[in-house]
Amino acid sequence: MKIAIINGPNLNLLGKREVEIYGERSFDDFLKEIKEKNPEVEISYFQSNIEGELINEIQRAGFSYEGIILNPGGYTHTSVAIGDAVAAVIAKVIEVHISNIFARESFRQVSFVSPHCKGVISGLGLQGYDLALQFLLSS
Amino acid sequence: MKIAIINGPNLNLLGKREVEIYGERSFDDFLKEIKEKNPEVEISYFQSNIEGELINEIQRAGFSYEGIILNPGGYTHTSVAIGDAVAAVIAKVIEVHISNIFARESFRQVSFVSPHCKGVISGLGLQGYDLALQFLLSS
Amino acid sequence: MKIAIINGPNLNLLGKREVEIYGERSFDDFLKEIKEKNPEVEISYFQSNIEGELINEIQRAGFSYEGIILNPGGYTHTSVAIGDAVAAVIAKVIEVHISNIFARESFRQVSFVSPHCKGVISGLGLQGYDLALQFLLSS
Amino acid sequence: MKIAIINGPNLNLLGKREVEIYGERSFDDFLKEIKEKNPEVEISYFQSNIEGELINEIQRAGFSYEGIILNPGGYTHTSVAIGDAVAAVIAKVIEVHISNIFARESFRQVSFVSPHCKGVISGLGLQGYDLALQFLLSS
Amino acid sequence: MKIAIINGPNLNLLGKREVEIYGERSFDDFLKEIKEKNPEVEISYFQSNIEGELINEIQRAGFSYEGIILNPGGYTHTSVAIGDAVAAVIAKVIEVHISNIFARESFRQVSFVSPHCKGVISGLGLQGYDLALQFLLSS
Amino acid sequence: MKIAIINGPNLNLLGKREVEIYGERSFDDFLKEIKEKNPEVEISYFQSNIEGELINEIQRAGFSYEGIILNPGGYTHTSVAIGDAVAAVIAKVIEVHISNIFARESFRQVSFVSPHCKGVISGLGLQGYDLALQFLLSS
Amino acid sequence: MKIAIINGPNLNLLGKREVEIYGERSFDDFLKEIKEKNPEVEISYFQSNIEGELINEIQRAGFSYEGIILNPGGYTHTSVAIGDAVAAVIAKVIEVHISNIFARESFRQVSFVSPHCKGVISGLGLQGYDLALQFLLSS
Amino acid sequence: MKIAIINGPNLNLLGKREVEIYGERSFDDFLKEIKEKNPEVEISYFQSNIEGELINEIQRAGFSYEGIILNPGGYTHTSVAIGDAVAAVIAKVIEVHISNIFARESFRQVSFVSPHCKGVISGLGLQGYDLALQFLLSS
Amino acid sequence: MKIAIINGPNLNLLGKREVEIYGERSFDDFLKEIKEKNPEVEISYFQSNIEGELINEIQRAGFSYEGIILNPGGYTHTSVAIGDAVAAVIAKVIEVHISNIFARESFRQVSFVSPHCKGVISGLGLQGYDLALQFLLSS
Amino acid sequence: MKIAIINGPNLNLLGKREVEIYGERSFDDFLKEIKEKNPEVEISYFQSNIEGELINEIQRAGFSYEGIILNPGGYTHTSVAIGDAVAAVIAKVIEVHISNIFARESFRQVSFVSPHCKGVISGLGLQGYDLALQFLLSS
Amino acid sequence: MKIAIINGPNLNLLGKREVEIYGERSFDDFLKEIKEKNPEVEISYFQSNIEGELINEIQRAGFSYEGIILNPGGYTHTSVAIGDAVAAVIAKVIEVHISNIFARESFRQVSFVSPHCKGVISGLGLQGYDLALQFLLSS
Amino acid sequence: MKIAIINGPNLNLLGKREVEIYGERSFDDFLKEIKEKNPEVEISYFQSNIEGELINEIQRAGFSYEGIILNPGGYTHTSVAIGDAVAAVIAKVIEVHISNIFARESFRQVSFVSPHCKGVISGLGLQGYDLALQFLLSS
Repeated sequence: MKIAIINGPNLNLLGKREVEIYGERSFDDFLKEIKEKNPEVEISYFQSNIEGELINEIQRAGFSYEGIILNPGGYTHTSVAIGDAVAAVIAKVIEVHISNIFARESFRQVSFVSPHCKGVISGLGLQGYDLALQFLLSS
Repeated sequence: MKIAIINGPNLNLLGKREVEIYGERSFDDFLKEIKEKNPEVEISYFQSNIEGELINEIQRAGFSYEGIILNPGGYTHTSVAIGDAVAAVIAKVIEVHISNIFARESFRQVSFVSPHCKGVISGLGLQGYDLALQFLLSS
Repeated sequence: MKIAIINGPNLNLLGKREVEIYGERSFDDFLKEIKEKNPEVEISYFQSNIEGELINEIQRAGFSYEGIILNPGGYTHTSVAIGDAVAAVIAKVIEVHISNIFARESFRQVSFVSPHCKGVISGLGLQGYDLALQFLLSS
Repeated sequence: MKIAIINGPNLNLLGKREVEIYGERSFDDFLKEIKEKNPEVEISYFQSNIEGELINEIQRAGFSYEGIILNPGGYTHTSVAIGDAVAAVIAKVIEVHISNIFARESFRQVSFVSPHCKGVISGLGLQGYDLALQFLLSS
Repeated sequence: MKIAIINGPNLNLLGKREVEIYGERSFDDFLKEIKEKNPEVEISYFQSNIEGELINEIQRAGFSYEGIILNPGGYTHTSVAIGDAVAAVIAKVIEVHISNIFARESFRQVSFVSPHCKGVISGLGLQGYDLALQFLLSS
Repeated sequence: MKIAIINGPNLNLLGKREVEIYGERSFDDFLKEIKEKNPEVEISYFQSNIEGELINEIQRAGFSYEGIILNPGGYTHTSVAIGDAVAAVIAKVIEVHISNIFARESFRQVSFVSPHCKGVISGLGLQGYDLALQFLLSS
Repeated sequence: MKIAIINGPNLNLLGKREVEIYGERSFDDFLKEIKEKNPEVEISYFQSNIEGELINEIQRAGFSYEGIILNPGGYTHTSVAIGDAVAAVIAKVIEVHISNIFARESFRQVSFVSPHCKGVISGLGLQGYDLALQFLLSS
Repeated sequence: MKIAIINGPNLNLLGKREVEIYGERSFDDFLKEIKEKNPEVEISYFQSNIEGELINEIQRAGFSYEGIILNPGGYTHTSVAIGDAVAAVIAKVIEVHISNIFARESFRQVSFVSPHCKGVISGLGLQGYDLALQFLLSS
Repeated sequence: MKIAIINGPNLNLLGKREVEIYGERSFDDFLKEIKEKNPEVEISYFQSNIEGELINEIQRAGFSYEGIILNPGGYTHTSVAIGDAVAAVIAKVIEVHISNIFARESFRQVSFVSPHCKGVISGLGLQGYDLALQFLLSS
Repeated sequence: MKIAIINGPNLNLLGKREVEIYGERSFDDFLKEIKEKNPEVEISYFQSNIEGELINEIQRAGFSYEGIILNPGGYTHTSVAIGDAVAAVIAKVIEVHISNIFARESFRQVSFVSPHCKGVISGLGLQGYDLALQFLLSS
Repeated sequence: MKIAIINGPNLNLLGKREVEIYGERSFDDFLKEIKEKNPEVEISYFQSNIEGELINEIQRAGFSYEGIILNPGGYTHTSVAIGDAVAAVIAKVIEVHISNIFARESFRQVSFVSPHCKGVISGLGLQGYDLALQFLLSS
Repeated sequence: MKIAIINGPNLNLLGKREVEIYGERSFDDFLKEIKEKNPEVEISYFQSNIEGELINEIQRAGFSYEGIILNPGGYTHTSVAIGDAVAAVIAKVIEVHISNIFARESFRQVSFVSPHCKGVISGLGLQGYDLALQFLLSS
């Protein structure tokens, strides 16, 4: 089974930026751990601050992988184009947010991506990626 | 560890109502299974169509249980009072929705409960309860 | 044929409250008359001020009766959960309002229930129930 | 007793247009039947696609007939002028819609006519005209 | 000097309809008087309930008359097309309303016609036509 | 003189929940004190988390008591039905809020109940009930 | 007969400021002329840039003069308090605007004053004051 | 092949009105040319300022012609009824606007007609009709 | 103890203006009475129709008095600057409205002042000032 | 003559993605055909999923080509920056959409690009590019 | 060169009020310093809490000074009349805010003054006045 | 001291594009001058049309430079992700706009970046960069 994890803008700063919201752990550490725990899964990882590169990666993985775990970061709330890409691909896409976006600014209540995803996990920290992976493996 | 599962209005119809949205399985079957898989956890279950009874149960469990898995159903979008109850209690509350509410009517994008929860899982079917339980057990 | 009449909050005050809007007749008198005029129909009656009890009754009648005549009163404009219940059941549901809600406050123009009903009759007084019954009998 | 039935734009296509919404029966057939069933009532019929001609007819009938059954079609949602005409006349006006306008596009939830009518019947098909007539006869 | 007075929908009912708002005088009486008081002016008069006929008349007078006194009635608030016609013609157009539209329903605060007129007189009864005429004569 | 105090959802948690907003005193203590200070008044007390039970109590007291002191809690902002109940009864109703709702979330600025009350006291803590009582006694 | 003309903020700049919108004539010249043309009327004049001084003047004139011609300038669109003052006084108040406010910025479409006036004249230049005076004299 | 061109309000003024927006050519000249260039097509032409007459013509052509080129003018933004007519007919309808409506007032961004058309061409002048014809011929 | 009562625009008309809303008593009478009832309190009184003078007085009293009873009248709904002044001072400020502003026009539901006050009393007539004073004395 | 065709995000998936909306043909096939049909025109082609690369290309072509045919895809509805680029260049820009965006989600009715284009063609499939080319060639 | 600094409501409290937002320095200290640093400039200073007095001062300085540095305080967000005054005068006006108004309440995002100013400096503390002065001197 | 200047989309066209809004000077000329005037400051410069590259640069400079002068161009109004990046970094960020964005289209009043900046300078041309630099140097 092949699963792609795709992280959007500013998620490369994890563990460095606003730790009271996002926690102190870097994504690399977490990624290593999740790969070790799931040796039978082929997990690819991609992060970009560039909206169109995220679309490129969604398109690349979306026709050959079984699932995508997508955290579109700030683009969640402004990108019709990422939403269109998710709608276009075949892979099952789970949207994950580290913080609870519903408890933050009102413009973060708007999502152009969520309607096209299978489901959304928000506010459960890095463990959200873990749970998304389990869902994809068992479904 | 003690965990309360609280289901809101119309979730007693699960497996019976609009199966194309909510699936064919009844919640009782699922509950039995989840209890068997997690024998070390004390899981209570409560369902009501009455808003205030849900508040009563959140208050009851919220000061003595470690976690609550709450699916407020249609009250998610209209109940300031359930949101207030979640804000008032000590237990960690995870909001779960069986269907992806972001892919449905626009009034389902409004939530008075989510800002007060630890996190939200939406669209992953009954497995959403499962993942919420895992999160509570490991956090 | 079995028909349920379900009345929402404050409709127990009929004939007693704001008679210039709702008229001077009590619902009991009217119910007696409508039963006598339609001896071949089994008409059940339920009134509650509690939103969830209305949902319970819609669920009870909704899978075994042919039709429901529903006046959700003030819950019409605020209850996603009653709307969900109407959407879930099999019986044909006709929404009735005694006064013309379109000629009143603007928040009474919003309805979470109407989209899930077969049709709506508003402003024709108690006779609205009568006409709804005729419709259900002949359809 | 004299009753005017006034139908607005596109209702001349009944039975021909979008039959999954409006049904397969033409209005002429229905009109003939309703006249036969109510021989004691003088029923006039008028249809026009022109907003101002509907106003002319409402004015003509509105000062000499006891009641008007009005289906303003698409003008319901855009015509302040038809609403003004209904407010100006003496006859009791019942608004009828064949389909349930509350279950359709959001712009069909707005009505400039309904606040000035005695009541509204929506979604009960051609039988809505029948019920409106009964109401007018008995009130 | 040639001046056209153009009255929109329901203004043919003046003196007959809602006299507490519009007064008891018919427009014919008023027209006769205003013609007698201004013998040097050629005053044409046109009333229609049909939006497009009003546009026809605005086009007819708008290229050969010096001024138009226009009361678009209910079309004021809904007709982009009448606004376009006023913008297209050469004659100076003064908009007149008998009642004070700012003291009525909020949808009467919206006007598609006023931005294209020279000016607006509202709430001064039939005398508003008189004042508009004086303005046109002296400007 | 008979006065009913009616408290809505989550007010049973007073002194226990969010003490920085609502203070540390339980309502029972306060109630005892206010009864002792006003021995000549018959004060009834009712609290419920269930919207419809609050309506039942407003109806019960509203036709036989002189005044009602009502804190609808979170239902203030969502309940058309409680507003309807207040409008229907004869007793003078004073709405009280312990915290200053105008300094909180924007959805707490909306009230379906206040327009039907005699007046509103907000932000003066438990003393707000005291002042409401004085008003009722002296008016 | 006593008539007060009250001009709001920036109208002291008339003839000096934005002449393409407001014209080149000063108000003093105009005032002199209008007094000469109407010797039988006692015309007082007041201009202030201070909202509250306008209220003072409306109150002063509003209980002893027959009419007020009021141009509230920029306060038209923001002053609830001037609107309240107009509503409080006995004199008939006509609102006048030199330019056509409906053809300008959208925030100039909102008026807190107009609903409390007898009528409004907008866009007819300084002649608007003249016409308002005539109306007051003849009514 | 039979194609109907239907022009809405004020388009009879083409070449005469606001030439900086709409150009200097009359529609008659253009029509002659387009007929000569496409001798194999039967092209009918209809213009009216009356909303309902446009509906009549859409109904007439819509069941016997292959295509309709429709410029609803100002009715584009206000006519639910024309939109309903387009939805009802069988012919393919292309909406054409001479000017770029997206670069004009914001109320011209709203269209009740476009959702029911096959497509829209806006801002390409009279050539827009030409391109629409080509599309209909080749599709 | 020193308490300032500050009244905003048009409150000098009390007893004279719109008595069906504001009552027949002048504020002077009431002030005399309240001073006599509370001889131990130094009560200053200030009324102005000028927004900035109210700010001056709030600033003057706000750093040397214990409490302010403020009725900002029509400025409640439009004055960010008065709200800023209340936020800036040290004294406890209670906002009072004589009429129930929640039962009036919708623009009176907006307040720029209330979020910065300790609390609000609305609709209890002149007695509202009395209750506010009691609150300040006892807190 | 030099014309640039610029396609935005996800249009590289044409013929592969959601064929019921976008058709089964790839853009490469179409491009080959259109070049063969117009040998006298130099047609460049650029597609990118990256917003800023589209801006780069609009800037590159916009000062040296006669025309640009631009399909901004999902960026149409969110990109102020692409709109700014179109406004900045000299070339005539025609916006093309394959599907009828007016018949889709409401957020697709908003365009930051269209006001700066010469015109818009929407819903005519790949032929829309063809018609845009013809327009550019003949204008 | 003559420059006027004009400060609006509550800015007289600088250094005294909400020091965490506005800093601890009084404006007098700052003014002295800025005058000493720019001996070649004639700097006038005016502060008022009264909206109309600010308009008076803008009018006074606006026709004889080269530049105005204006901090309209809370009136920024509510005063059409101050915006009109700025638009009327000849002097170049720079708007300054001490705190970053974009990081505060949403009603502070609205400005009636900024569109008429040359530019805006916000959030740079008292130094904002300094930078505005430099701009005026060098432009 | 190290300061980064970061310019967003279309700012590479400065001096070339819409000179009536942005002036005739290229940014390179200006940059050379500002470096010469401030030899003690290390000034880096970066321009990109690509949103994510701007984020990359903000992240790069934001943890090692003292200050950033950021003109996000059209992304100001649409980019949550750039706003997140600004919030994440340590450097002080000043937002600069060459033109007065408050005097332009209403969508330019919305900013996702400004709330996270120290301050904003708008409308002072290229000199705005100069003033921002001075602020950073002296703070």
